[in-house]
Amino acid sequence: MVATVEKPTSAVAPRRRQREINLRIPGPTTLPPLVRRALSGQMINHRGPEFAALQDETVAGVRRVFRTQNEILFFPGAGTGGLEAALVNSFSPGDAVLCITVGSFGERWCEIARAFGLQVEQMAWPWGSAADPAVVADRLAGGPPVKGVMITHNETSTGVTNPVGEIAPAVHRAGALLLVDCVSSMGAIPCETDGWGVDVAITGSQKAWMIPPGMTMLSVSPRAWEATKTAKLPRSYWDFQAALEFQKKGQTPYTPAITQMYGLRAALRMMDEEGLENVFRRHHEIADYTRRGIRRLGLQLAADLRYVSDTVTAVVAPEGVDMKLVHKRLRDEHGVILATGQEHWRETHFRIGHLGYVRRSEIQQALRALGEVLGR
Amino acid sequence: MVATVEKPTSAVAPRRRQREINLRIPGPTTLPPLVRRALSGQMINHRGPEFAALQDETVAGVRRVFRTQNEILFFPGAGTGGLEAALVNSFSPGDAVLCITVGSFGERWCEIARAFGLQVEQMAWPWGSAADPAVVADRLAGGPPVKGVMITHNETSTGVTNPVGEIAPAVHRAGALLLVDCVSSMGAIPCETDGWGVDVAITGSQKAWMIPPGMTMLSVSPRAWEATKTAKLPRSYWDFQAALEFQKKGQTPYTPAITQMYGLRAALRMMDEEGLENVFRRHHEIADYTRRGIRRLGLQLAADLRYVSDTVTAVVAPEGVDMKLVHKRLRDEHGVILATGQEHWRETHFRIGHLGYVRRSEIQQALRALGEVLGR
Repeated sequence: MVATVEKPTSAVAPRRRQREINLRIPGPTTLPPLVRRALSGQMINHRGPEFAALQDETVAGVRRVFRTQNEILFFPGAGTGGLEAALVNSFSPGDAVLCITVGSFGERWCEIARAFGLQVEQMAWPWGSAADPAVVADRLAGGPPVKGVMITHNETSTGVTNPVGEIAPAVHRAGALLLVDCVSSMGAIPCETDGWGVDVAITGSQKAWMIPPGMTMLSVSPRAWEATKTAKLPRSYWDFQAALEFQKKGQTPYTPAITQMYGLRAALRMMDEEGLENVFRRHHEIADYTRRGIRRLGLQLAADLRYVSDTVTAVVAPEGVDMKLVHKRLRDEHGVILATGQEHWRETHFRIGHLGYVRRSEIQQALRALGEVLGR
Repeated sequence: MVATVEKPTSAVAPRRRQREINLRIPGPTTLPPLVRRALSGQMINHRGPEFAALQDETVAGVRRVFRTQNEILFFPGAGTGGLEAALVNSFSPGDAVLCITVGSFGERWCEIARAFGLQVEQMAWPWGSAADPAVVADRLAGGPPVKGVMITHNETSTGVTNPVGEIAPAVHRAGALLLVDCVSSMGAIPCETDGWGVDVAITGSQKAWMIPPGMTMLSVSPRAWEATKTAKLPRSYWDFQAALEFQKKGQTPYTPAITQMYGLRAALRMMDEEGLENVFRRHHEIADYTRRGIRRLGLQLAADLRYVSDTVTAVVAPEGVDMKLVHKRLRDEHGVILATGQEHWRETHFRIGHLGYVRRSEIQQALRALGEVLGR
């Protein structure tokens, strides 16, 4: 699963690889050879039967991973677009929403909600912490009513997985819609869309799905469908109703991301073959291996240990070390690309992605390189 | 340039092709082998130097094709998303816009404008006609002022190319922004973004660019940049300012459509090698060949001959012929996929796409097949 950075070459061409890269960022993730081959598929008529079959198969496969009976919708766009789509289909201007944040991506979602004129109440936990279900429940039971609760399942900036399953009951008791950003969790960590009663779950193609960025996939519960009927935020591109109407005819309202769907079909077959529980187990074992390795290097994890993420590990940068130089040396001398910290963690933290098409050997190589560069 | 429909296979894998397909729809268009190979490229860090170089090269290449000095922005999404982006960055709720329509895609853009609460005045010409510059000029000189004028350069549903260059001066005299849907024209037909003074031009990856759907590219004039500063329509995903800010750092606000950009880089190199004037000439010659062939079959063109499109030819279905059966036989017996008519033209017209990666021989085969199926 070690990839090359060079002029893009075919997955099957026996060219000399110029340089081996171990891409350890939390997405875009490394593409498996089968996916790369699928991506080179020729175009088809998006109003014809081949496309209808492609859509049927991929929607059904995504539904299994979401563990839901809800409708599944695809939109060409980034996961960030999916976060916007969830809002504009659920709410009207001025609607009150509770936005639970534990890092950068939660804050981004708040910003989107504010840009659309929602009345956003942000409950922020410090970076590295998870949201506390009791505190959320207290707020929902006591404070002014909200139409919806937005929460990040897996916060990519801090390596924290929020206990969405424990938070959900209070949201339901409050009669609010539960909107969950599952961009970097779905397909890597158990995400019980129906089990938890998630009204809108959002994911992005470039994470655990092992395919390129450019498609966002959402599930929409019957309750959320009801909400779309009265939601007055302006929308056209992201409109759920139009997407579903066309999906039922085997089409899409506008040209779909056919190449991403080719990749998704291949990736879903791989996931099916491995078995979803095995995919989750692999992610957990590799994450655990990463965390133990980080500690063996004398480094400190950034996330609350009770809520550490199985898809990305955030690490406190050792004091007095120039992380820019570390990243450069990791890259130039070892072909290892780690992610920097985000925002105020940019210089003080770094992150190791371990989601999607990843094996333990790649983490081993990354950790060995890190130890060498840090002189540990 | 004859392609296969089957399980997507690598462009370079010497597998047995199951069936040859001549995809003659006006997008998604056939992918050249070089593009298909590029699409299988491995992922990279979208916050790293390889991505910055990829973005620089593709933005510069697209700028040359747009024939503009304006800023060029890419968004993961369909061309329809680009149409929405142009509006939400230019206007405020209630702003008056003039929407010139000559077919389905113009009408779609009106609908988007209405969904966002713009006060839309639609000037509709009958399907098959082009907009009349004199009539538009009269309206702009005489009627109530408008903030913007929206027009489709090349109407894919009817095979008509609007004389945007002749309409533009009146728009400028009226002090309105000129927004042009160039989704199915840019890169195939001369589109003088700067020469005509187009404030926002929008295109989509799956047309003349010879790459898969999933990316929209726009140019934004200094005047349009000024407008974004006061435009109050809610926006986040499509926000021009954020896109430009990140582009200047070699990044994007959220994960970009890396695979489409790999394809675009390859396609731009092909277009550079052929020469843009030669690309236009090829499109014109092939379109002319298509039109002559259609007439030789005794069939009637749907578009006003003065404004026939060089990217798609709309044809009146012969009376008494079941076009569903024609499409089926073309497909099953000849591997030719034509496009149906759209909306009220669905049964009465059909369309032949000839844009992007197309040669005369493919049109020849399609026409021969059509003649055979129609018994002519």
